[in-house]
Amino acid sequence: MAKSLLNKINSPADLRELPAEKLADLAVELRQFIIDIVAAKEGHLGASLGVVELTIALHYVFNTPEDDLIWDVGHQAYGHKILTGRREVFHTNRQLNGISGFPKRGESEYDSFGVGHSSTAISAALGMAIASNLSEDFEKQHIAVIGDASIASGMAFEGLNHAGVTRANLLVILNDNAIGIDPSVGALKQYFAKAKVGYKPRQMNMIEALNFQYHGPVDGHDLPSLIKALEHLKTIKGPKFLHVITKKGKGLKKAEEDQVKYHAPGKFDRATGEIIVKNSNGLPPKYQDVFGLTLLELAKKNEKIIGITPAMPTGSSLKYMMDALPERAFDVGIAEQHAVTLAAGMATQGYIVFCNIYSTFLQRAYDQLIHDVALQKLPVIFCLDRAGLVGEDGATHHGVFDLAYLRCIPNLHIFAPMDEVELRNMLYTAQLGLEFPLVIRYPRGRGVTIDWQQPFEKIESGKGICVKNGAKIVVLSIGHIGQNVKQALKQTPEEGLIAHYHLRFVKPLDEELLHTIFGKYERVVTIEDGTATGGFGSAVLEFAAKHQYSLPIEVMGIPDFFIEHGKVEELQEIAKISVEDIVKMLKLQLHK
Amino acid sequence: MAKSLLNKINSPADLRELPAEKLADLAVELRQFIIDIVAAKEGHLGASLGVVELTIALHYVFNTPEDDLIWDVGHQAYGHKILTGRREVFHTNRQLNGISGFPKRGESEYDSFGVGHSSTAISAALGMAIASNLSEDFEKQHIAVIGDASIASGMAFEGLNHAGVTRANLLVILNDNAIGIDPSVGALKQYFAKAKVGYKPRQMNMIEALNFQYHGPVDGHDLPSLIKALEHLKTIKGPKFLHVITKKGKGLKKAEEDQVKYHAPGKFDRATGEIIVKNSNGLPPKYQDVFGLTLLELAKKNEKIIGITPAMPTGSSLKYMMDALPERAFDVGIAEQHAVTLAAGMATQGYIVFCNIYSTFLQRAYDQLIHDVALQKLPVIFCLDRAGLVGEDGATHHGVFDLAYLRCIPNLHIFAPMDEVELRNMLYTAQLGLEFPLVIRYPRGRGVTIDWQQPFEKIESGKGICVKNGAKIVVLSIGHIGQNVKQALKQTPEEGLIAHYHLRFVKPLDEELLHTIFGKYERVVTIEDGTATGGFGSAVLEFAAKHQYSLPIEVMGIPDFFIEHGKVEELQEIAKISVEDIVKMLKLQLHK
Repeated sequence: MAKSLLNKINSPADLRELPAEKLADLAVELRQFIIDIVAAKEGHLGASLGVVELTIALHYVFNTPEDDLIWDVGHQAYGHKILTGRREVFHTNRQLNGISGFPKRGESEYDSFGVGHSSTAISAALGMAIASNLSEDFEKQHIAVIGDASIASGMAFEGLNHAGVTRANLLVILNDNAIGIDPSVGALKQYFAKAKVGYKPRQMNMIEALNFQYHGPVDGHDLPSLIKALEHLKTIKGPKFLHVITKKGKGLKKAEEDQVKYHAPGKFDRATGEIIVKNSNGLPPKYQDVFGLTLLELAKKNEKIIGITPAMPTGSSLKYMMDALPERAFDVGIAEQHAVTLAAGMATQGYIVFCNIYSTFLQRAYDQLIHDVALQKLPVIFCLDRAGLVGEDGATHHGVFDLAYLRCIPNLHIFAPMDEVELRNMLYTAQLGLEFPLVIRYPRGRGVTIDWQQPFEKIESGKGICVKNGAKIVVLSIGHIGQNVKQALKQTPEEGLIAHYHLRFVKPLDEELLHTIFGKYERVVTIEDGTATGGFGSAVLEFAAKHQYSLPIEVMGIPDFFIEHGKVEELQEIAKISVEDIVKMLKLQLHK
Repeated sequence: MAKSLLNKINSPADLRELPAEKLADLAVELRQFIIDIVAAKEGHLGASLGVVELTIALHYVFNTPEDDLIWDVGHQAYGHKILTGRREVFHTNRQLNGISGFPKRGESEYDSFGVGHSSTAISAALGMAIASNLSEDFEKQHIAVIGDASIASGMAFEGLNHAGVTRANLLVILNDNAIGIDPSVGALKQYFAKAKVGYKPRQMNMIEALNFQYHGPVDGHDLPSLIKALEHLKTIKGPKFLHVITKKGKGLKKAEEDQVKYHAPGKFDRATGEIIVKNSNGLPPKYQDVFGLTLLELAKKNEKIIGITPAMPTGSSLKYMMDALPERAFDVGIAEQHAVTLAAGMATQGYIVFCNIYSTFLQRAYDQLIHDVALQKLPVIFCLDRAGLVGEDGATHHGVFDLAYLRCIPNLHIFAPMDEVELRNMLYTAQLGLEFPLVIRYPRGRGVTIDWQQPFEKIESGKGICVKNGAKIVVLSIGHIGQNVKQALKQTPEEGLIAHYHLRFVKPLDEELLHTIFGKYERVVTIEDGTATGGFGSAVLEFAAKHQYSLPIEVMGIPDFFIEHGKVEELQEIAKISVEDIVKMLKLQLHK
């Protein structure tokens, strides 16, 4: 298809030159452009297809970048990127040194605020709007586009609640497609679902009760209606709310039909939409499936087991349990704070609660973990998926801080398996009954063991293991990154001189084992896929200082800057924790 | 006054023996008992006085402790404690080894869930209620009592939003007195304020829109109405909501009149309510006032300065700026997440935002600090009051994790003043313009400098100072705890052998100074009033390991368990960071 309109748009200024009747054609071109690139290069698809018309209408009506436009989460911002000068580089999306998959301030003046985690847009836009009032700029517009899954998160409510008592020039647009990554849940979602295009139910004053002017619902694929509504809203001062009804995946039949799968479908046929299935025969399982399948296996036998996910049933693979045992598996929506304290409440009643949260999203429930779980020593089990470097999602999503922010919390045990069997056995061990809260962290992606469904074995708390003996140098690793150590050892000349221990627990540290190790070797190297500042390496340094060992200790871990997007292997090189970096370090140590 | 009824109540079972017409007399006795003890022993007053009748009604109607009763925050739970077997020990409230100022699971089976931070009760009660359903106990009641300030926090909304799609046997009671510690703010508060006893406005379907059955409003000081309402609600299954209107400080005229001051008034005359003013002549200022007064002084000259507090205008002393420059000082309510991202939004527009949050409450906005501020390198200034041990508020409120959880965040600078003048000068320096986000942490209570309003001086970023030279041993301190070091040095024999450096910045560490120090002394001691795990001491260990220094380093800091309540000095002894502990450590080091 020729892109005769789209190819001429290098900025929204070009867009605004078009006559309104051409915009529908542009929408067709833009939608096809997104499909063509994502089909070949992968990325998030459905969300951006759903807001093609809204994106065009916003840039057509508002004076971006002078007006501030914030896309909550940012999965839906591909069209925005393409219309704001990044059409030619869009094929580098999510690749190393390419553009980010999310809006990002450093990338474009049209990206008013960096996003990635959900529900931040209202607060950020309100901050900008209040600032404009202080600067006596009463013309500037501040727009937050937020989905129905994100607006149900507590932080969004806090923003609405504050905005309603200000005179800020804020427009909140609800992009209501009844789905986040998985279908939306909760009472608010049911409430919004009562609204239909052209019909605003009597109770739609819930938004008005928060002092917003409510407008809509508008059909989000009807450009003239959208433009008319936005033109009108532009003339209204103060906080206002536009309810837009869209369809996720709009314009690609298969994406409309299976919205969960087409959120980020991987490579697909651009014409038919058919997903190009990767052959995973002979590959080890994904860690998330080891979690999901094992939990279901255990929950079938142990009726005290409960599973909780905040809005990630598919991503965490809790869906296996949700399908088979729905009364004991809960998707609570994008509500990490609630998820953690809900788990604590259930634990007080004797249930064994597995709360699965991506490492980066547990940052949202840090206080609840300390205050509601650890302080009360409630034996909740936190399964932190996507720990370490996550790859293409980039800086907003890497789960690299967890070891540092968790390690200081009393009562908490922290475990990181080196392979699938260890994850499986720890899930088994945890449901036998614990006296303390436990964190199990594991990475995105696949493990290393094809035959992982082995008979369960109990894992002793706070005990590490020797992976390989040696004579002079010892490498201490935690979690899956130990696989890099294994590979590196095979590539190191005097391999026999080097020992490898997998500590398993960052907390409590296996002090008995460490005493043996510090008594036996000459030099110590620690490695983790979390921040070198305050993480596992620091735990080892603290141990050594406390017991007055003076062995040289080298700490390998994520350095003190934000790592951007790219393949995990590429990012490991940047962080200097790749197999090659370990080989280099070991060679250096051997020659000291 | 004789307590003829109260003295016979050793548990709610005794209460339930009373005829209903005696309950009003009991309320008088209970209220007087609270006043008498708090007048002499200090503590939180107004909130508990406001719920005397509600407390009696709840334990009269419900079958506690079989039914679960959760008091959100817990400031209001004194009556609950007194009626549930703790009357005789109530005078030990908030003292070392005495009862906690908050409900606490370990203290009583009537304390279904430990509280302290706000807005957790709905999630916890819902967890219990779902657990009861799973256990097929459909009679058990689960009650969350939450104030109008707390219910406006995002976490509470998340709980309501989930509860509304369950069949959980949950009763949420809104204790609506239009005030938290300071007057409540926000659109939701304005909305609730439209309801009057006997009048439910048409729009009160905001709660019904979330699938709760709305009941009330009921006069919270009318025992027969309360009991009738609760008896009725007990028969209703599923999520239900009772709106109770109360008066904070009810029954003590002065407390009703000045609800902010009487939230926790200190000692007062039990008869008149007159506060016994402590003579503070000749005392150094509170750190919070150094912040509040200096910020106002600076903001008067620099119109780019904005101040933000999440619900602590009085406690943070931001009220000085709110009174004088209301258009640039914001109380956003109990909404730490929103506060941080709002600040980020303002910072993108070139404003210099001082966001004042208690150290323990920044745990609520950890993700926003990483994702919205540090990742975008926005120069927001976080002023963390109540850092370190806070004393009588105890385990829920100590600000001891901040150094560990902040240190791993790239781009962030972390400063801790040793006295008021340093705090003042850092506030001055920060408003000159920064290229990075900054945290300034300082403790609860008073500093050491009476003449603190000295001319401003710029503080160089990342630079520490030498407090005192020495010959053999060096003590490295951060923040106000350096005052303990100063005192300890005066009590140590061979004082001349000991040097003392105050590093000022935990991040970036003054590596240049540290190289000098490590080249000069034989033994190093670090001290901080944060967790020894992952904190300032660990930063020094990381430096030493990186540069292969093999000096012995002793890390003094908060040990790896939760510290309970008591006077700060008492708690410092438990944590082994008191002046005496430092003296002991220095003597030990001298003889090595």
